[in-house]
Amino acid sequence: MHPLESLFNPQSVAVIGASHHEGKIGNIVVHNIIVSGYKGKIYLINPKGGKILGLPVYKSIDDIPSVDVAVIVVPAKIAVEMADKVASKAKYIIVITSGFSEIGNIDMEQKLVESARKHGSRILGPNVFGIFSSKAPINATFGPAEIKKGNIGVISQSGALGIAMIGKAAEDNLGLSAIVSIGNKADLSEVEILSYLFQDELTKVIFMYIEGLENGHEFMEIVKKKPEEKKIIALKAGRSRAGARAVASHTGSLAGSDEIFDAAFRQAGILRADSLEDAFNWVATIAASPPPKGENVVIITNGGGLGVIAADACEKYGLKLYDDMEMLQKIFEDVMPEFGSYKNPVDLTGQAGAREYELALRRAFENDAIHAILALYCERGDAELESLMNTLIRVHKEYEGKKPALYALFGGEGTTKIVTEMKKDRIPAFYEVEDAVSSLHVLYKAYEKREEEEIEDIEMDDDAIRKIIDAAINEGRSRLLSHEAKEILLHAGLDVPPFRLAGNIDEAIEYANEIGYPVAMKVVSEDIIHKTDVGGVVLNVENDEEAIDAYELIMKNCHMHARRARIEGIEITKMLPPGTETIVGATTDASFGKVLMFGLGGIYVEVLKDVSFRIAPISKKEAEKMVREIDSYPILAGIRGEKRKDINAIIDSIYRIGILVNKFGEISELDINPLIVYEKGAKVVDARIMIKVKK
Amino acid sequence: MHPLESLFNPQSVAVIGASHHEGKIGNIVVHNIIVSGYKGKIYLINPKGGKILGLPVYKSIDDIPSVDVAVIVVPAKIAVEMADKVASKAKYIIVITSGFSEIGNIDMEQKLVESARKHGSRILGPNVFGIFSSKAPINATFGPAEIKKGNIGVISQSGALGIAMIGKAAEDNLGLSAIVSIGNKADLSEVEILSYLFQDELTKVIFMYIEGLENGHEFMEIVKKKPEEKKIIALKAGRSRAGARAVASHTGSLAGSDEIFDAAFRQAGILRADSLEDAFNWVATIAASPPPKGENVVIITNGGGLGVIAADACEKYGLKLYDDMEMLQKIFEDVMPEFGSYKNPVDLTGQAGAREYELALRRAFENDAIHAILALYCERGDAELESLMNTLIRVHKEYEGKKPALYALFGGEGTTKIVTEMKKDRIPAFYEVEDAVSSLHVLYKAYEKREEEEIEDIEMDDDAIRKIIDAAINEGRSRLLSHEAKEILLHAGLDVPPFRLAGNIDEAIEYANEIGYPVAMKVVSEDIIHKTDVGGVVLNVENDEEAIDAYELIMKNCHMHARRARIEGIEITKMLPPGTETIVGATTDASFGKVLMFGLGGIYVEVLKDVSFRIAPISKKEAEKMVREIDSYPILAGIRGEKRKDINAIIDSIYRIGILVNKFGEISELDINPLIVYEKGAKVVDARIMIKVKK
Repeated sequence: MHPLESLFNPQSVAVIGASHHEGKIGNIVVHNIIVSGYKGKIYLINPKGGKILGLPVYKSIDDIPSVDVAVIVVPAKIAVEMADKVASKAKYIIVITSGFSEIGNIDMEQKLVESARKHGSRILGPNVFGIFSSKAPINATFGPAEIKKGNIGVISQSGALGIAMIGKAAEDNLGLSAIVSIGNKADLSEVEILSYLFQDELTKVIFMYIEGLENGHEFMEIVKKKPEEKKIIALKAGRSRAGARAVASHTGSLAGSDEIFDAAFRQAGILRADSLEDAFNWVATIAASPPPKGENVVIITNGGGLGVIAADACEKYGLKLYDDMEMLQKIFEDVMPEFGSYKNPVDLTGQAGAREYELALRRAFENDAIHAILALYCERGDAELESLMNTLIRVHKEYEGKKPALYALFGGEGTTKIVTEMKKDRIPAFYEVEDAVSSLHVLYKAYEKREEEEIEDIEMDDDAIRKIIDAAINEGRSRLLSHEAKEILLHAGLDVPPFRLAGNIDEAIEYANEIGYPVAMKVVSEDIIHKTDVGGVVLNVENDEEAIDAYELIMKNCHMHARRARIEGIEITKMLPPGTETIVGATTDASFGKVLMFGLGGIYVEVLKDVSFRIAPISKKEAEKMVREIDSYPILAGIRGEKRKDINAIIDSIYRIGILVNKFGEISELDINPLIVYEKGAKVVDARIMIKVKK
Repeated sequence: MHPLESLFNPQSVAVIGASHHEGKIGNIVVHNIIVSGYKGKIYLINPKGGKILGLPVYKSIDDIPSVDVAVIVVPAKIAVEMADKVASKAKYIIVITSGFSEIGNIDMEQKLVESARKHGSRILGPNVFGIFSSKAPINATFGPAEIKKGNIGVISQSGALGIAMIGKAAEDNLGLSAIVSIGNKADLSEVEILSYLFQDELTKVIFMYIEGLENGHEFMEIVKKKPEEKKIIALKAGRSRAGARAVASHTGSLAGSDEIFDAAFRQAGILRADSLEDAFNWVATIAASPPPKGENVVIITNGGGLGVIAADACEKYGLKLYDDMEMLQKIFEDVMPEFGSYKNPVDLTGQAGAREYELALRRAFENDAIHAILALYCERGDAELESLMNTLIRVHKEYEGKKPALYALFGGEGTTKIVTEMKKDRIPAFYEVEDAVSSLHVLYKAYEKREEEEIEDIEMDDDAIRKIIDAAINEGRSRLLSHEAKEILLHAGLDVPPFRLAGNIDEAIEYANEIGYPVAMKVVSEDIIHKTDVGGVVLNVENDEEAIDAYELIMKNCHMHARRARIEGIEITKMLPPGTETIVGATTDASFGKVLMFGLGGIYVEVLKDVSFRIAPISKKEAEKMVREIDSYPILAGIRGEKRKDINAIIDSIYRIGILVNKFGEISELDINPLIVYEKGAKVVDARIMIKVKK
């Protein structure tokens, strides 16, 4: 049994602060519990005693036995005072009361949590509207009393919006398996609620309204355990401007909170909606539709521009219009009027009424070559809409388990009424073509095959890496020196061309000969970030003589342009032949932890911001998706007769970085810029690693 | 008086094919004309005679006097037979009848037009639903009888969709100044209708549904004459895949019909909607709102997530949230409840009801620092929605001319009713936050200052250009040779570095010395398109010896790899220092004529398709917008410490190409690839010009 079973299916409930006055929250909650048909025990607590809505009232919490759930509606101060006692009696405490951390009263909230911890109780809230669960059933909210049962589970961070969602769901006749507001998340968060809904057989689709996640890492972990057949749609509000954060790396400066949520959702297979309207349309469609068995979509229309608009939208969303003309003709032969068209969108012409739609829909539902149906109707002045409505509903209901069928009817009061009635029958019907197509697209996305792949631990020289990091930490250095960063990457298994740190001219010549000319020479100093700007880099050094000149030049430049810089030496590296420059990076997000980035180097990253993100660590499959996702991917795949670059080498590099930063949490930022990719292999040219030094 | 005045405000109307049978189109049209309160003369024609809806029926068109408008509803064949007679009696003929070019009967349609031409009449249609004009008023359509009057003019290419739009407008209580369906556009097209609506004082905003334009050039000309205060919103359906067209140039292959419509609309200041829902929302908002006087938007909310969602959407659309905290506090001081927030979105908290909204709205309307209002409301279980509704409507009506105010109310039946009622009062109210913000954004865009600039004719050596083109045409060559293309560009005033065509080794050496080493040498042959592929190019030729080698090598390569190619000679050009490669091109669109393209060369064009388009010719201002519009613009503006490139030189080049292709219509395609841009100047390196050779 799931640990939250007693929250969603309690045997007994206490309402602390039940009220005698109609309209008060403490009265509405009691009313809603009763009206919802709750069959367990209800204990009402109010020092005044008496009766509320026919139920006896206990004057003190001392007077009642232990309960599964206690709902607190008394003012914040009293709630804190009573918390200890309540926690001693209830497994779950729903704190509807507001006035805690959301207005700065963090201490009071902390006290609530401490009381609960002491007794092993858990808290939902504070600052929530309560919980509805169709399993019990119980409606312990102060929202609308009537909530329809169904297969949609809702988690809302905002209480106010949650209540409005109940209203919206009722209007659209969406059935809920549960709706939970998590408010300030002092204790229980979306993670535990998701974990419950994943195993709840009543829930098919989950809608989450999120403003922020404190525990993105746990969130990703739990979402990985989502059963294949359940679907999550999320609306994330509150975009923060990336510019507001001060970061030292490319990766960090490009990784805005919104981009990271986007990456996390994509990675987790969560469908992200941009508006409440989309979210509700999508939820309704997934809740009411079987999975599509193939890609062939057929559009049925009575002509006008609707067919064209729908075909446009299908192209935009990448939906495939079934185009086997011979087959289409065979399917719709006996339905098609004069001047009609078999070409998908199948045009039944303006003359088509209930009879024609019935026949066409039957044909489309019955033929296995068609996998999904989009039926459109454009209002005409003279049509009998009543019979059309009855027909559409009747035919859809007859076949609805067979394949997805979505409807869009455009016009005035007549078609609005049809859509409204179809919605009441839980048929995915829309006022707008674009909404229908977008919903069908999301239905397809929801059932896309997701190949999971294990993240294997790969061999790295952990001890060597640890040693370098610890040394820096001990010295209080947050930025690793170039050769330190390269050594770590080498130990992590990346391809780092030979490099040596020379402390004087003799060493420089020795190392250059060891590595083999031509070499590049770069100053190494914790104090010099932009080496090129101070003249600290000389490329294409061909022989000993040039090496001596280069060494002296770099030293002179640095003494001139960065007089106080403490110079560690000069790094000698092999000059590499030109290849395609990419950038692989990692940064630390406050919520999700380690985040990986990939893009093409230079202008692609800096100007076009053409990069992809993922939460670390990732599988090789996911790393491959990261590489393919960028717009400039064709450059890697080979264009203009150029050979394909070694994409596997990039994938391997990203994969290793993911494991590295995950294993060594102290690495707060990492940039390999560039990682030069060749037809065979990918080599680290420059690397920067930032370490989190504890103060 | 506008030539179409008699169509929109006719003194007399004849219905050819008026029907005795209720439900028939010929009966509905008569009914609608009568019901619409039309005050002019009505003549009904039907060989059966008698009376229809109380009006006498003439047996023949011969029996009636001349009329302003004749509406034809008889079958297509009869319509063609009668066309001559009808044209002799009517200035305007509205052919509702379908069955013409839309199903392939092009000849029949042509006959209609010929009859009309003979008598100087004009045709609207065929295949239309008719016309409604509030000026007359007259509703000569077979759509709904009741159409509300207002300031919105609608032009629909689709008849079926047009009728549905009337229904939708009625449901949303949008008032129309006119709605016209243009159907097959055998004679009158959107161009003339626009020209009428531009001078029609009843029309403020125009909504167009377009599937295709045959006369894009005239369309652009008329739209340039749009009065500043009138706004156009267009929905363009029917995207054609660019890939379906066979084209020889980069510009041609990138210029899909949809991209060109996008460019044309942008250039013309037409607001493009992607869905019917957006279009209706935007039209309603512009129709009902005064122009915003400044950029400061204030969001008023009762909390929940709606404020966050709205702020996100404002950021997405670039709307500026007023953020003078001191001022906001002063404005809303006496409205704000405990726990409320002055920070925009201004949060009145969940306790806010009608009274608080009234006060807050009054403050926002009355303070001149606020230029636009977005008022949100999230449904609560316990609120008195009736009084909120009355308050919102009353307060809005009191102030509505003062500044734009848009409303979004989210929830169930309660808020739906408020939005519906507000719409009835022609207040821009929405069920969805995103819709409200998008509509406000479009309102701002509609009133953006548009600086027009004259396109001056610039001096070109027209005669020299004409000579080159004519020579190619005479020889039946559609592709100009490289040096011909360069000569044309030189005559057009572009900066083309020295080039000569050498017919033998001696000439090659002579020209190379004349131009000055280093030079590039390239084969010139009509039969060789990809010069590099056959080894027809040698770069960086430094002296006579190398020139001889290069000449021989190119000849050898060409004879080997392109044995049958007729070689014109070898082009000698100055080697140019590296710079930023751009591409400037022109192509010919079936509808809009000459189209210009600009982008950065190589991968930016080929992989990222980062290009901008305009319909030629364009002003320098518009050319500048083209350059700034591409994503990679920062590369030209100067990044990573690089100096700004000579953007004026690019603008000048595009400007000249625009004038060139417009003046010499025979130039069907043109690519300058690359146009290398320096800190000073932009030079043509390679050019290709295609000529339309009449067969």
